[in-house]
Amino acid sequence: MNRKREIDLNCDVGESFGVYKMGQDAEILRHVSSANIACGFHAGDPNVMMKTVDLCKSLGVAIGAHPGFPDLAGFGRRDMAIPPEEIYHLVVYQVGALLGMARTRNVPLEHVKPHGALYNMAAVHPPVALAVAQAVKDLDPNLILVGLADSKLIHAGKQIGLSVAREIFADRNYEPDGTLTPRSSPHAVIHDPEMAGTRVVRMIKEKKVRSLQGQDIPLVGDTVCIHGDHPQALTFVLALKKKFQEEGIVIKSRSR
Amino acid sequence: MNRKREIDLNCDVGESFGVYKMGQDAEILRHVSSANIACGFHAGDPNVMMKTVDLCKSLGVAIGAHPGFPDLAGFGRRDMAIPPEEIYHLVVYQVGALLGMARTRNVPLEHVKPHGALYNMAAVHPPVALAVAQAVKDLDPNLILVGLADSKLIHAGKQIGLSVAREIFADRNYEPDGTLTPRSSPHAVIHDPEMAGTRVVRMIKEKKVRSLQGQDIPLVGDTVCIHGDHPQALTFVLALKKKFQEEGIVIKSRSR
Amino acid sequence: MNRKREIDLNCDVGESFGVYKMGQDAEILRHVSSANIACGFHAGDPNVMMKTVDLCKSLGVAIGAHPGFPDLAGFGRRDMAIPPEEIYHLVVYQVGALLGMARTRNVPLEHVKPHGALYNMAAVHPPVALAVAQAVKDLDPNLILVGLADSKLIHAGKQIGLSVAREIFADRNYEPDGTLTPRSSPHAVIHDPEMAGTRVVRMIKEKKVRSLQGQDIPLVGDTVCIHGDHPQALTFVLALKKKFQEEGIVIKSRSR
Amino acid sequence: MNRKREIDLNCDVGESFGVYKMGQDAEILRHVSSANIACGFHAGDPNVMMKTVDLCKSLGVAIGAHPGFPDLAGFGRRDMAIPPEEIYHLVVYQVGALLGMARTRNVPLEHVKPHGALYNMAAVHPPVALAVAQAVKDLDPNLILVGLADSKLIHAGKQIGLSVAREIFADRNYEPDGTLTPRSSPHAVIHDPEMAGTRVVRMIKEKKVRSLQGQDIPLVGDTVCIHGDHPQALTFVLALKKKFQEEGIVIKSRSR
Repeated sequence: MNRKREIDLNCDVGESFGVYKMGQDAEILRHVSSANIACGFHAGDPNVMMKTVDLCKSLGVAIGAHPGFPDLAGFGRRDMAIPPEEIYHLVVYQVGALLGMARTRNVPLEHVKPHGALYNMAAVHPPVALAVAQAVKDLDPNLILVGLADSKLIHAGKQIGLSVAREIFADRNYEPDGTLTPRSSPHAVIHDPEMAGTRVVRMIKEKKVRSLQGQDIPLVGDTVCIHGDHPQALTFVLALKKKFQEEGIVIKSRSR
Repeated sequence: MNRKREIDLNCDVGESFGVYKMGQDAEILRHVSSANIACGFHAGDPNVMMKTVDLCKSLGVAIGAHPGFPDLAGFGRRDMAIPPEEIYHLVVYQVGALLGMARTRNVPLEHVKPHGALYNMAAVHPPVALAVAQAVKDLDPNLILVGLADSKLIHAGKQIGLSVAREIFADRNYEPDGTLTPRSSPHAVIHDPEMAGTRVVRMIKEKKVRSLQGQDIPLVGDTVCIHGDHPQALTFVLALKKKFQEEGIVIKSRSR
Repeated sequence: MNRKREIDLNCDVGESFGVYKMGQDAEILRHVSSANIACGFHAGDPNVMMKTVDLCKSLGVAIGAHPGFPDLAGFGRRDMAIPPEEIYHLVVYQVGALLGMARTRNVPLEHVKPHGALYNMAAVHPPVALAVAQAVKDLDPNLILVGLADSKLIHAGKQIGLSVAREIFADRNYEPDGTLTPRSSPHAVIHDPEMAGTRVVRMIKEKKVRSLQGQDIPLVGDTVCIHGDHPQALTFVLALKKKFQEEGIVIKSRSR
Repeated sequence: MNRKREIDLNCDVGESFGVYKMGQDAEILRHVSSANIACGFHAGDPNVMMKTVDLCKSLGVAIGAHPGFPDLAGFGRRDMAIPPEEIYHLVVYQVGALLGMARTRNVPLEHVKPHGALYNMAAVHPPVALAVAQAVKDLDPNLILVGLADSKLIHAGKQIGLSVAREIFADRNYEPDGTLTPRSSPHAVIHDPEMAGTRVVRMIKEKKVRSLQGQDIPLVGDTVCIHGDHPQALTFVLALKKKFQEEGIVIKSRSR
C-alpha cells in the first residue's frame, strides 16, 4: 500500500523555573510536532511559560498544557492523595493559565497531557481519569486529551466525547499487558536510539510491540513521547526523525 | 433632578487558602455587585477559586480577577522588585486561570483589579500600570480594568482602549491631591459606618470628597470597595446599602 | 492507693501562617503542659514560630517541634510518597529551625511529634518511623519522641534509645486492636466533653479503654492530645482539667 | 618581611533545588576553604542541604549558612519589603535548620553570610544589618558574620561583639567609595582571571584596590568570594589558586 503514514512527536517543555534551567527546549522543539508546556505547579513559571509559548509559535509546534501536582520540590513525580474533585480544580487552573498565555499570543491551545504522578494516577484510577478528562472538556471540548495508550485516561476521554491521542514510548519497554515496565526495573528504559527507532516504527506500521517478556502485543498510538530532560534527547529525536524519513512516516501534530 | 444613580459595590473575596479561612464571603457577597477573586498567588487556591466562582454565580455577582504578587506569606502586600515584563506574565497567568474556572461554569469574567502591593505600584508607576493594563487587554479587550480613581493604572487602561472602573473608598481618608491617606497615619481609616456612608453618597452625587486637611477635592468613582477581611465588613456594607436606598442610589455592576 | 498521678496535656499550636490565623493558642496554652509547634512546612512561618515560642516560654509550657510534610495547601494531611531518607532530612530541617528559635530565647526544646500524614505514616510504616526517630536522636538524644501509643514510631524510638511519650486521645474512639477509629467513620470523634473526660481518666488510672465495639482494651499513655484547631477546644480542655482535678491527676509535662 | 599570608576563599553552594541542578559544587568545593550553604528559602532544599554538608565535611571545607529571602522564583535576588523583626526570624529559622543538619553530622557551623537582596540590604540599611547580626549572635555568639567589606553589616556585627569576615571580590570593579560597581554597569564584572588574580593579590598584600575610576582605595578583606554559579567558576578558582601559590598566600578558612 501507498498510504502516507503520520505520527505526532511530543515533548515535555517549559520545565525551567526562575533561575533554574531544565531541558534543551530551543533545540528539541525544532524537531517535534507537539509541545507539552509545564504550567507552574510541578515546574515552569509565568515567565518560562510565555517564553515557551513564543518559541512554539515561532517554530510552528502545536501547544499543549502539561498540568501536574503542586509539588515543585518533587517535580510532580510523587503521588499525592488529592481527591478527584480537587484534581479537577488543579487541572482547570493550570490549563486555564496556559490558555490565557496562548490567547495573548493569538495561538490556539491544542491538547492537554497530565504530568508525572498525575499522568500515572490518571492512567489507572478511573475517578482521577474522569476528573482530568472532564476538566479538559469543560474548558474546551475541542481540546485533545493525551494519555498513555489503552489507559483509563484515554477511556475516560473517549467516554465523555473528547478527541484523544494515545501516547506510545520509543524508549521504554512494555509488559505483556501493555503497561510500561516500571522504572524500578533495570530494563525499563531502552537506551539505544537505533533500537528505539525500529521499535516505534513497528508500533506505527504494524501496531505491535515486542514486550520485555518476548511476545508481541497490540499497541495503537497517535503520538510518541520524547523525554526532553534526558541528556541524549537531541540524539534520540534525530535518530527517530531519520528512521521516520526512511520509512515514509511524516511527523505531524494532530489537527483539532 | 430625577435621574437614577447607580454605583457598583465591589469586594475582595476568595482569599482563603487550604484549611485557612479568611473573610465572610458567603455573607458579604449577598450585598455587593462585583467580586474580585484572588487567583492563588497572594491568596486563594484552585479549590477556593472554584467555590467562589460558584458562589458568585449563584448570587448573580459579577466575577472579576484579583491578581497579586507571588507572596502568600506576605498576602501580596509587600513590595517586590519585579520588572514590568514579568508583571505582565504574572497577570496573564492568574487571570487566565480564573478565566478557565469561569469558562467551566459558563459565567463571564467581567473585570480585573490588581491586589495589594501590585495595586499600589500600578497606581503610581506608569510602566507597571501599562504592564497590568496590556495583560488585561491582550487576554480580552472587553474586560473592565479596575484601579484607584485618577491613578496611573486608570490612565494606562484608558490610553490603550480598555473600559475602566475608578475605585473609591468609603472608609478611607483622602489627601488634597486625591491619593489615599497612607495606612501609617492614625487617620487613614474611617471607622464610623454612618460617616462613611455620608461621604460616599457625596462622592457619588456631588463627585467631591472632603480631604483630611479640610478642603473639598473632586473625585469621580464608578465602584466602591468593601474590605471583606475586616471584622465589621458586614455592618459596614449594610450601612452603605441603607444609605444608598435612602438616596435612591442603585447598587449595580457595570455592564461590559 | 494514694500515689499521685501525672499526665501531660499536649496541643498542636503555631499553625497560623502569614495573615491567616488558626487556633486559639493564647487561650489553650494556659491550660496545657506541652506545645507542639508547627515548623513552616504544613503550617506556621518564622514569625508565627517565634511568637509561639515566646508565648510558651511566658506560660511555662514545654516546647516541642511538630514537623510535617511540605504541603501548606493540604495542611500536611495528604499522604506524600517521600522516601525515608528524605523524611529524615525534612525532620532535621524543621526541628533544627525550631531548635534555633528556642536557642535565641534560651528555652530548651523538649520533644518532637510529627504532624498529620507524617504522624500516621510513622505510626504504621517501620522505615518511616525509623527515619523520624533517627532524625530526632541525631539532633539531640535527650529529646522525647511523641507518637501514637503502641505505634511503630514508639517502637522505633525505644529501639534506638530515645525517651518516648505515648499519645492517647480523649475525643477519639478506639478499635479493638488499639488503633483509632478512622475519621471516615461517623463514630470517629467523641463530642461530649464529659464522656471524653471519663474515658481519659480511665485510660490514666486503669490503663484501659472501651473500644467502639464494646470490649476493654489495654492502653498506656503518657500524654493526651488536645485538638487546638477545634472550635470547642477550650471547652474541652476545661472539662478535662476539672475532671483531672477531681481525680487527683496532675497535669505536667514529662521532664527530659 | 617574611610573614605568611592567609586568605579565605568562599563559595555559595547547595543552590540546587529538587530536580533542578545549579553550580558545580563537587568540583569547586575541592578548591575553596569556606562554603556558604543555601538554606531552602531562595535556593536549596533539605536533601540538597544535607548532601552539601556531607560534601563539605568530606573535603574539610568550613560550613556556613547562606540565608536569603523567601523567593525561590526570584532566587532571593529581588528586594522584598520585609521589616527587620521579620528578617531576624527568617535568619534564625534558616540558620537553625542548617545548624540542625550540621549537628546530625557532627560538624560545626562556622559562619553566616546573607544572600542576594538580603546581603545587599544588610550592607546599606543599619536596621537590616542589625537584625541579621543579632540573629547570628543569638544563635551562637561564636559564629563568624560574613559581609561586604566596610558595609553596615560588618559594622553591626562588630558593634554587638561578633567576629566578622570582610568579603572582597576578585571579579568585580569597585567605586571610589569602596562599594561595588553596580551590575547595571558594563564594567561591573572583571572577566579576565589573570587580571582578577593580580587585583586580589594586591588587595591581600597591599590592602588596596584600583577603583574603576582610576584611583587607589583602601580595602581590607578576610575572605574572597567565588561565584559558583558562573560557568567559568572552576577556571577562575584555579587561576586564583595558582596566583596565591606564586605569591605565598595560603588559602585557609578563619578559625572560630
